Amino acid sequence: MSEYIEHDETGATVGVVKKEFYTFADPADGGQKIVLESGASIGSVTVAYETCGTLNSDKSNAILVLHALSGDSHVAGYYSANDPKPGWWDIMVGPGKGIDTDRYFVICSNILGSCMGTTGPSSINPESKKPYGCDFPVITIGDMVTVQKALLDHLGINKLFSVIGGSVGGMQVLEWCARYPEMIRSAIPLATTTRHSALAIAFNEVARQAIMADPNWNRGDYYCGPKPDMGLAVARMIGHITYLSDEAMRVKFGRKLHNRSALSFDFGGDFQVESYLQYQGKKFVERFDANSFLYITKAADYFDLARDHGAGSLIKAFSKFQGRYLIVSFTSDWLYPTYQSKEMVKAMKKSGLDVSFCEIDAKWGHDAFLLPHTRLGSLISGFLKGVSFN
Amino acid sequence: MSEYIEHDETGATVGVVKKEFYTFADPADGGQKIVLESGASIGSVTVAYETCGTLNSDKSNAILVLHALSGDSHVAGYYSANDPKPGWWDIMVGPGKGIDTDRYFVICSNILGSCMGTTGPSSINPESKKPYGCDFPVITIGDMVTVQKALLDHLGINKLFSVIGGSVGGMQVLEWCARYPEMIRSAIPLATTTRHSALAIAFNEVARQAIMADPNWNRGDYYCGPKPDMGLAVARMIGHITYLSDEAMRVKFGRKLHNRSALSFDFGGDFQVESYLQYQGKKFVERFDANSFLYITKAADYFDLARDHGAGSLIKAFSKFQGRYLIVSFTSDWLYPTYQSKEMVKAMKKSGLDVSFCEIDAKWGHDAFLLPHTRLGSLISGFLKGVSFN
Repeated sequence: MSEYIEHDETGATVGVVKKEFYTFADPADGGQKIVLESGASIGSVTVAYETCGTLNSDKSNAILVLHALSGDSHVAGYYSANDPKPGWWDIMVGPGKGIDTDRYFVICSNILGSCMGTTGPSSINPESKKPYGCDFPVITIGDMVTVQKALLDHLGINKLFSVIGGSVGGMQVLEWCARYPEMIRSAIPLATTTRHSALAIAFNEVARQAIMADPNWNRGDYYCGPKPDMGLAVARMIGHITYLSDEAMRVKFGRKLHNRSALSFDFGGDFQVESYLQYQGKKFVERFDANSFLYITKAADYFDLARDHGAGSLIKAFSKFQGRYLIVSFTSDWLYPTYQSKEMVKAMKKSGLDVSFCEIDAKWGHDAFLLPHTRLGSLISGFLKGVSFN
Repeated sequence: MSEYIEHDETGATVGVVKKEFYTFADPADGGQKIVLESGASIGSVTVAYETCGTLNSDKSNAILVLHALSGDSHVAGYYSANDPKPGWWDIMVGPGKGIDTDRYFVICSNILGSCMGTTGPSSINPESKKPYGCDFPVITIGDMVTVQKALLDHLGINKLFSVIGGSVGGMQVLEWCARYPEMIRSAIPLATTTRHSALAIAFNEVARQAIMADPNWNRGDYYCGPKPDMGLAVARMIGHITYLSDEAMRVKFGRKLHNRSALSFDFGGDFQVESYLQYQGKKFVERFDANSFLYITKAADYFDLARDHGAGSLIKAFSKFQGRYLIVSFTSDWLYPTYQSKEMVKAMKKSGLDVSFCEIDAKWGHDAFLLPHTRLGSLISGFLKGVSFN
């Protein structure tokens, strides 16, 4: 169940990315089903994960990187010399990079509910022998963390040097620190929030409605027929608007026309921004499952750190963690605006936590944390260098 | 073709709203088809319009009010004592209100391409005797103004005391001033822009994609079968998000649950903001035509005052108008943010125009111009009182 891949970026072999799968809670193997926050339970959960770098002898250099909505376990490196694209955070994770794999052992696993190797609605339900579809239980950010914790137990890692992630990955970081404070030396939640605003819920709900309005969605049961590609494409387009910003779009597209010199007076899409969104929608349906989109956005909407870990108080929710925090927000992120990070920092300080906060001036909106940015890399590497190994 | 309706708001008869239809450019009656900006032409155009107040003897007190995307000619008053809802801008138009119908004669017509009485894609194509559907030509804001000008000619009005409108109605105001500067004494474009940003185009395009993704849309030919209600509902939900604001949604909904005390762990819509959007979507499909939504949003995206009237220069586009301008923006409007109004005002000033500008502090987002606001009413009435009748 495992494969070894050369981490080859420039032609030279610079490290090893290890891709593996771990299956647990399988009643067929005598295991117990895992109980989810909803009260439902699920058995035989497979986790797809990749590691880069080398775990040191006292297992003190492990960093858990947590991906966002549509990400996967392939965080860094190329699968082969011909691979056209590296992992989703290759700019940050690798030898000598912000998260330096010469120093740290990086683990990244695909989240529960996704469709990139970890069990989700498109996986086979061991009971019915058919894909779960909407029989898959509604999951939470906490349930994702439950699965990650099982993976770490399997790897024999009981202390994390750091937990790092952006957006929905940042929510998992916050959940990790609230659930397993004693396991974590430091944490970096990027471009995230302790709970979705009504605006963020609204965007997710409209995207879900677009999927569920597609007759091919068929109440989630479409794995043997045509897929709800049109609905998922619209959902992705809505998402893409929220990942960018007014300024980013102005700089990137403005009112430039697409492959034409004059208005076409039809509905094909005259402007570059239109063809960009159409392209993003089309590309997404090739790689992502519509039900996974529903489940993961729902988990993000449900996430509420203060409700779940502080009886409504954010200060209380942060109180058990003793490690160091680095919070990063981006000026043009209007999905999780800086004011939400500041609320977080304020509550952390009131909780007596050691927290550093940085708002990075970036015009690329919410997605800025995934884009090349010298400042972010040096900020993270500098912060990590200040964290003690024991 | 005309009906007279009592303008009855409080039980007492306070004025008269007159609803009429005017049909022109009908080749069957010997008329010439009107030529649109695309080069296409269209014959037999009916305009639905309403008037409130009394036109004075020298016809110097006429105000043209221009509605936004989904509006209609019913700008103010109730159709009967039992009518549950007044016209869309009843808070502003009426005896003693911001636009005082004791002083002014208000005309409001449904725009070309709509579905509220004026010719649009759901109207019967006189050539095929069937609804136009997507055989209806793509129209522009300029084409809407062409139709409004024909209506004014029909009414014998050759001078307007003022032209007033918000959002897409504001674009029509700007187009009127550029096309017929000598006809207009004053103009009030509210919560509008001289051209859509990439962000505004992006939202419209995703909404259009949602409609066109609905199999019932059937390339616009659905008038004899099921309508693309699911797609149109999603489109409206997207629109509604852009009409509100982060703050408006936080104040109005926050994370309040809808008719439940705990999370439901299903996809029905736990949060109030979700059920609100679902309701808005459902309500909209009962009254609006999906093709009209496509055509009017496209016209708004195409609108570019500098391109069409100033060879790329906004200053030049404003140069012919000699009347007075009042520009109003709203702090929380992120569809047409204040910086866009300021660009407009700057160019007007460089053009030597008499322009007043006001940014109103309002948390309700783009829709603020439609909501009760003491300041807006007194601002408009004060501005109009300063305009000379001749």
